[in-house]
Amino acid sequence: MTQDPVVTNPDHYRVIFENDAVRVLSYSDMPGDKTTPHEHPNSVMYTLGPFRRRLISGDILREVELPGGVALWLDAQEHRGENIGDTPTNVVVVELKDGSVRGSVERALGPIAA
Amino acid sequence: MTQDPVVTNPDHYRVIFENDAVRVLSYSDMPGDKTTPHEHPNSVMYTLGPFRRRLISGDILREVELPGGVALWLDAQEHRGENIGDTPTNVVVVELKDGSVRGSVERALGPIAA
Repeated sequence: MTQDPVVTNPDHYRVIFENDAVRVLSYSDMPGDKTTPHEHPNSVMYTLGPFRRRLISGDILREVELPGGVALWLDAQEHRGENIGDTPTNVVVVELKDGSVRGSVERALGPIAA
Repeated sequence: MTQDPVVTNPDHYRVIFENDAVRVLSYSDMPGDKTTPHEHPNSVMYTLGPFRRRLISGDILREVELPGGVALWLDAQEHRGENIGDTPTNVVVVELKDGSVRGSVERALGPIAA
């Protein structure tokens, strides 16, 4: 991974578990916080609380609003994000190391609901 | 899966997301609650709160006490569990569908810390 979020944005991303199959990150921020461009492999996201975010990849922009307690799929993608809500973001990200890319990395932006 | 926990213990296990790579379950119970024997594929577990549980597989027994907010690996295994603490158990389980078995299913019981 050339733009590992743990490296690019260490104030927000933290490794909480890793083995040969997965790496698990915690992500947290406050309203107004922004991340710099980083990459995610295929991942499962679990929201620990509600949040509202703007995700940007190149010239594509997407706003996402989610409640807490939901699990979503994140196709491998490069993006940066911005907390545009009035609550902190608290998310757990389970990165899969199988190397397969399910979607189109160029097109993917943000999570996919169940 | 012959003993799918969603089938064997629907009061506790619920599917909150599924695609071709993963299935995500929520597990919740109250002190004293017990599950019947069921199987887990290789999974990542994330604890939403602290709990204390007894896990039983055949004649092997293991007690597990965990804080909230930790991620652990669960090798594919068959077990049943019992909440022996004084708090509810609330856990998210990300099941991997890659089919690989990292450990020995017969020997595995309970989660593996980071």
